[in-house]
Amino acid sequence: MSNKLTHEEQEALVISEDPEHPANLISELCREFYKLGWVTGTGGGISIRQGEHVYLAPSGVQKERIKPEHIFVLPFAQSSVPRPGSKRDFLRIPSKKGLTESQCTPLFWNAFTMREAGACIHTHSQHAVMLTLLHPRDAQSFKISHQEMIKGVRIGGVGKTLSFFNTLEIPIIDNTAVEEDLTESMAAAMEKYPDAPAILVRRHGVYVWGNTWEQAKTQSECLDYLFEIAVKMLLAKLPLVGDN
Amino acid sequence: MSNKLTHEEQEALVISEDPEHPANLISELCREFYKLGWVTGTGGGISIRQGEHVYLAPSGVQKERIKPEHIFVLPFAQSSVPRPGSKRDFLRIPSKKGLTESQCTPLFWNAFTMREAGACIHTHSQHAVMLTLLHPRDAQSFKISHQEMIKGVRIGGVGKTLSFFNTLEIPIIDNTAVEEDLTESMAAAMEKYPDAPAILVRRHGVYVWGNTWEQAKTQSECLDYLFEIAVKMLLAKLPLVGDN
Amino acid sequence: MSNKLTHEEQEALVISEDPEHPANLISELCREFYKLGWVTGTGGGISIRQGEHVYLAPSGVQKERIKPEHIFVLPFAQSSVPRPGSKRDFLRIPSKKGLTESQCTPLFWNAFTMREAGACIHTHSQHAVMLTLLHPRDAQSFKISHQEMIKGVRIGGVGKTLSFFNTLEIPIIDNTAVEEDLTESMAAAMEKYPDAPAILVRRHGVYVWGNTWEQAKTQSECLDYLFEIAVKMLLAKLPLVGDN
Amino acid sequence: MSNKLTHEEQEALVISEDPEHPANLISELCREFYKLGWVTGTGGGISIRQGEHVYLAPSGVQKERIKPEHIFVLPFAQSSVPRPGSKRDFLRIPSKKGLTESQCTPLFWNAFTMREAGACIHTHSQHAVMLTLLHPRDAQSFKISHQEMIKGVRIGGVGKTLSFFNTLEIPIIDNTAVEEDLTESMAAAMEKYPDAPAILVRRHGVYVWGNTWEQAKTQSECLDYLFEIAVKMLLAKLPLVGDN
Repeated sequence: MSNKLTHEEQEALVISEDPEHPANLISELCREFYKLGWVTGTGGGISIRQGEHVYLAPSGVQKERIKPEHIFVLPFAQSSVPRPGSKRDFLRIPSKKGLTESQCTPLFWNAFTMREAGACIHTHSQHAVMLTLLHPRDAQSFKISHQEMIKGVRIGGVGKTLSFFNTLEIPIIDNTAVEEDLTESMAAAMEKYPDAPAILVRRHGVYVWGNTWEQAKTQSECLDYLFEIAVKMLLAKLPLVGDN
Repeated sequence: MSNKLTHEEQEALVISEDPEHPANLISELCREFYKLGWVTGTGGGISIRQGEHVYLAPSGVQKERIKPEHIFVLPFAQSSVPRPGSKRDFLRIPSKKGLTESQCTPLFWNAFTMREAGACIHTHSQHAVMLTLLHPRDAQSFKISHQEMIKGVRIGGVGKTLSFFNTLEIPIIDNTAVEEDLTESMAAAMEKYPDAPAILVRRHGVYVWGNTWEQAKTQSECLDYLFEIAVKMLLAKLPLVGDN
Repeated sequence: MSNKLTHEEQEALVISEDPEHPANLISELCREFYKLGWVTGTGGGISIRQGEHVYLAPSGVQKERIKPEHIFVLPFAQSSVPRPGSKRDFLRIPSKKGLTESQCTPLFWNAFTMREAGACIHTHSQHAVMLTLLHPRDAQSFKISHQEMIKGVRIGGVGKTLSFFNTLEIPIIDNTAVEEDLTESMAAAMEKYPDAPAILVRRHGVYVWGNTWEQAKTQSECLDYLFEIAVKMLLAKLPLVGDN
Repeated sequence: MSNKLTHEEQEALVISEDPEHPANLISELCREFYKLGWVTGTGGGISIRQGEHVYLAPSGVQKERIKPEHIFVLPFAQSSVPRPGSKRDFLRIPSKKGLTESQCTPLFWNAFTMREAGACIHTHSQHAVMLTLLHPRDAQSFKISHQEMIKGVRIGGVGKTLSFFNTLEIPIIDNTAVEEDLTESMAAAMEKYPDAPAILVRRHGVYVWGNTWEQAKTQSECLDYLFEIAVKMLLAKLPLVGDN
């Protein structure tokens, strides 16, 4: 760990009266996501990148009870890009015993480096998981069109918003035993589907990113809405693409 | 913009300690609507007309985080009735950078001018959208009868309340790529169905109005209840009209 | 109106710092019931009888926004038992313009007089309504057995609690155009089914009562749970009675 | 009752400004569980064991309205292990009239003695009950695999966390007329299935435990998520085990 900040400097990175400070936002948004059923049982979370700082929640804790002092801060410019099992540089590690940084760290970094995202959200939403379960085992992606909520989603998650008549396509990748091991297949899917605003993970959940935390959050809401209505449509045997 | 008010006069239009001031109400109601799943991902909203003033939320923002200072105020008497792409007169434009008035503006005006409504609510409720999806592609309207909740709905949205034995009918119009472009088809449907208290938009949501914000809200709740139970009834193959 | 109390005496009937005062409880419980989807769109409510006083919410208002000063107080001993259209004696009528007492008044009185109940709750819960819709048109009652939640329900709503092996039976009566007109058929069903803890109203909702507001509320929760799971069981073609 | 503490010493057992004091936690968590639909109508609850003290909620009360002063405190070392109808030793009995300790007491003790658990949660979640109803009458257990949320569950509830590729198995026992009478069959199931992190009770609910209240709660959330998605999968005719 290359941390050379004093204790006071480290605390100043996460303690702020500004409700829009990333450490406050992560705590507040995780409480909201819990109410939506996105982060129950310690799963899921959000990372925010602000300039050269990346803010991360701890791994394996109750997400709705996170406090700003539990937040990790990392320099965006790492000695080496986070990979499964790699060593990471930190600016701040919470003093509370036993906390480790989110296991999603290298997956969040995929969004930061490949899409220049400012925030990345990971949920275990049942709508996302049921959607992957209702797709054939060998389906490579989920597609939907002719839904107003598609208009809230940006091309590649960070470009122009989609039109009502566009078909939204989101790749589905297989789950792995260890969360970090999704890093490469997520990156490969992001390369193969440059317009996709998210990655679905079969039997697991979804990763969504955006230019800012606001865009990452509103896109997560639009996509979760689309996953939910797509599940209902599939169960009612309605086609997801086209305007029949 | 024909705005001739001073900055202080403009602020006085939206800053009030009265919780029933339209700028406070819009902020509070949008938070409530978010919890109901009506305005996730920046979609949906509410406009209130009070005498000669119309209060509008901004376009494309998180509706549950709107503050009174984000509210637009327009004179109800416009140089020309708002149409898609038309220029609008404002009494107050929020100073926060990048805010534009709701894209639903000309649709809200339909309710204000054609029904003399005091408020109009737009939701992306999944119950409304699923209901349109479960109707045949060429269905012109949704009909339901023999439900207690019908009694909470007014004829044309602003007249006498319906009876338990009345059949409620709500037209369904097609969605368009740009929200404002719904203006004409919504107006045409309101003319063709003068008793309808709302307009359903296929694959999009619903517009509901009332004499006051209270009536617009309670009617939105009654209608959303009816949309939800109608979806359940259709999936269970129960007829929507009649008392079998 | 036989009211002979001074204005101060009338206000003292509903203004209290005790959170368990009926006027405070009705306001608080209606907010809770709103969150449960029981009283959306002005429907439903609760009446509490405390000794010789009956506390009632107004008719046709947003139930989640009721304040103690909106509450009606009636003497339990009325000149004549409330019937549809009958004149009622009041101890307090709210000063806010346009408020009238709940249209459920004579139905609540059924519970107070026929079961000596201390509180009666009316909901428009969709679980109750869907349950009546999934029953044959000529079904006289709903029956369920072998559910733990049956144990939270009392015989006749006010007697001993049911056992896991008892069959719970709740009569279903037809809806009427005017809520008050349910008075006689509800009373007839209560006579025919003396052990029933509630009355289901087809395409409308349910009336539940108890010795106290706590018992009326917990029994409403147990019954709503049973209505919900019964709907799921019927849709999954599982029998409601027996332990197969 | 072997209680030899003074009134002040008894009160000191439950009155604390520390939000993580068991008496405060039980009150707060029951409010949260109510929102999740786990403890409606007085059903369900949580017991926390901290060192030599066991904290219990009262029986048959509204769980979302419990206050710290309603909490029972028992010595973990009892004269005799709690059995149905057995006499229990108390350190503190709430002074509020009519309160008796939770009927789940001997069931909680199963978790404390057989698994050395630090907390045990009982819910009436409809997902748990529907899951038992969708299993054949003679099914001995519920099994599921290939779900990310399995990774939040520990072997036997208190050991190492399960892997994505492990099959989670939870025994299903029959319900009894009196809650305490589940004690023996629950213990027998815990012996037969030493790796099971919970016990499902047919037509009733579930018991979940963990080393700490945090683990009991997050495991309850993971399991409830799995029960819910398993119900959806069974209704959609998807296999629960395997990765098809």
